[in-house]
Amino acid sequence: MGGNSPCASCKLLRRRCTKDCIFAPYFPSDDPHKFAIVHKVFGANNVSKMLHEVPVQQRANAVSSLVYEANARVRDPVYGCVGAISFLQNQVSELQMQRAVAQAEILCIQMQQQVDDVPMVQQLSVPTVSIKKN
Amino acid sequence: MGGNSPCASCKLLRRRCTKDCIFAPYFPSDDPHKFAIVHKVFGANNVSKMLHEVPVQQRANAVSSLVYEANARVRDPVYGCVGAISFLQNQVSELQMQRAVAQAEILCIQMQQQVDDVPMVQQLSVPTVSIKKN
Repeated sequence: MGGNSPCASCKLLRRRCTKDCIFAPYFPSDDPHKFAIVHKVFGANNVSKMLHEVPVQQRANAVSSLVYEANARVRDPVYGCVGAISFLQNQVSELQMQRAVAQAEILCIQMQQQVDDVPMVQQLSVPTVSIKKN
Repeated sequence: MGGNSPCASCKLLRRRCTKDCIFAPYFPSDDPHKFAIVHKVFGANNVSKMLHEVPVQQRANAVSSLVYEANARVRDPVYGCVGAISFLQNQVSELQMQRAVAQAEILCIQMQQQVDDVPMVQQLSVPTVSIKKN
């Protein structure tokens, strides 16, 4: 945040924190882990480049998503965030199936109710299709 | 892959591709984009470190997830993979609600059927709870 009180990033990188430091607004000195983890996974230079490519008003969201991704990668070095995506995709598929089963069950009950509501005489008089055997 | 035919990573980094190159098995020279994108997002040094931390038999999966994450970050510089996670979480919530509604509807129909199945006389004789007012 300029001169005397370096942000967490400048502290870790042992450099002077200028008043136009790109990291300072998002990596306060009292939360050193937040920068350390994105630095470990993406590297300070890449984070800096990525933040420069994003409009100022969206940088806080970009930092949050980078921190989330970095934490996921440290927790799961093989799949990282993609593990969560895969898990959620499976959950969506399973829920879509369960919803389809429930909706089919509703349809089935409703059709059964319609059959039950028709008087017996009418049910018996429904024409049947006969297949002629040659 | 050693000496004469460098992998995509060594080609991009302009270095000699040795036979123990950590990138060579996963970044063939005929797919330069695959390495370029993980290098852009994570940096070659970080990718190398991450691969060294993962057992050999899981490195192909680690590379796939890093490529997936890097592509997501390039497509969406603000949210990257986290955008997909957020979208899927919302989809899961909505599906859970739809499943609950469908299951409640089934329960409702079944309870209505039970009421319909009970003879009218029996329905009338069901004891009611009366609340005494003080």
